[in-house]
Amino acid sequence: MKTGEISAAVIRRLPRYYRYLGELLNRGVVRISSKELSDRMGVTASQIRQDLNNFGGFGQQGYGYNVEYLYSEIGKILGLDQKNMMIIVGAGRLGQAIANYSDFEKRGFLIRALFDIDPEVVGTSVHGIPVFHMSEMEKFVKDNQIYIAAIAIPKEAAPTVANELVKMGVKAIWNFAPTDLALPREVAQENVHLTESLMRLSYKLKAKEEE
Amino acid sequence: MKTGEISAAVIRRLPRYYRYLGELLNRGVVRISSKELSDRMGVTASQIRQDLNNFGGFGQQGYGYNVEYLYSEIGKILGLDQKNMMIIVGAGRLGQAIANYSDFEKRGFLIRALFDIDPEVVGTSVHGIPVFHMSEMEKFVKDNQIYIAAIAIPKEAAPTVANELVKMGVKAIWNFAPTDLALPREVAQENVHLTESLMRLSYKLKAKEEE
Repeated sequence: MKTGEISAAVIRRLPRYYRYLGELLNRGVVRISSKELSDRMGVTASQIRQDLNNFGGFGQQGYGYNVEYLYSEIGKILGLDQKNMMIIVGAGRLGQAIANYSDFEKRGFLIRALFDIDPEVVGTSVHGIPVFHMSEMEKFVKDNQIYIAAIAIPKEAAPTVANELVKMGVKAIWNFAPTDLALPREVAQENVHLTESLMRLSYKLKAKEEE
Repeated sequence: MKTGEISAAVIRRLPRYYRYLGELLNRGVVRISSKELSDRMGVTASQIRQDLNNFGGFGQQGYGYNVEYLYSEIGKILGLDQKNMMIIVGAGRLGQAIANYSDFEKRGFLIRALFDIDPEVVGTSVHGIPVFHMSEMEKFVKDNQIYIAAIAIPKEAAPTVANELVKMGVKAIWNFAPTDLALPREVAQENVHLTESLMRLSYKLKAKEEE
């Protein structure tokens, strides 16, 4: 299956399907129609069918989806059927907040280390995860086959560190710095731009007030 | 101008235009064509023109955009031409990381207080912002005309707290808990679902590997 051509909007919705299906599974639901799933998620049933058709369907007309099968298939599409080793660069409040987030481990994302230059945090640990000095990062990334790195450092330092990480072998950058990184085409990038998210909220607030 | 009918995809891009225009302004750029802006941002020029036409245009064919004017107009659309008072519910690592993020203040979002129930943090301050006990929240929200609240507490408690905030007069919820909140139609909601963002990165990583 070629996954490279799927639209950004579909990719945006997939993890949400996965989360809802996981909740259904936890409650023992075996089968669900696209109609029921759509009521629950606030997406149209045809949107759901269309999205899932990108990956070959998974359902039979009039018969609904097998929850466990669909959950596991979407998990595979998202690369959650394997353990993903990752590190966090930056052990300030944000880096620590990410390290502390126990949901990631449940999804197979294992945070192996944090890196910083601040002597106050180097040598400590967060949520049981060690904080090392940045100078140890290259060896760690290579020795531990780290493919994913979260960047939680000031935006001025982010581009340089991101490029260094790529040279060390990192293939996916989860960027929390408020800047867009120019990375080689073969490197995956996902941004969490908090200020932009807050601006969207402000926009929605204003739009609701004008309704 | 009716802003309620603008698509989610446009709303998603607006803050990014705002960020790029702010950077151009800082560098003293007075005028920019949609072509130049598009090269810089990695969006097509026609996409930019189409997006901005939703709000009445701002540019003259063949003449480009006045950077300062466009920046200020998009700022108004995003509700950044006024001060937005906000609070953070939850003063754990994530709440503290949000409070510590100085970019928000630059955009007119003033975090006035954090709230928690943990005696270890109640009475302390983060980045100069006081942490109060949850029992003081209602009075604070009403006395200080707080319209925006960030929710950085476990998902089990998030729906109840969100509904309480709405009853207190909060009109916009910035939700960091990994769940979708069922809020009244007139309340704005924006979610930061970190696990979903990480899953999208994992998907992209897999897609690049399969290319």
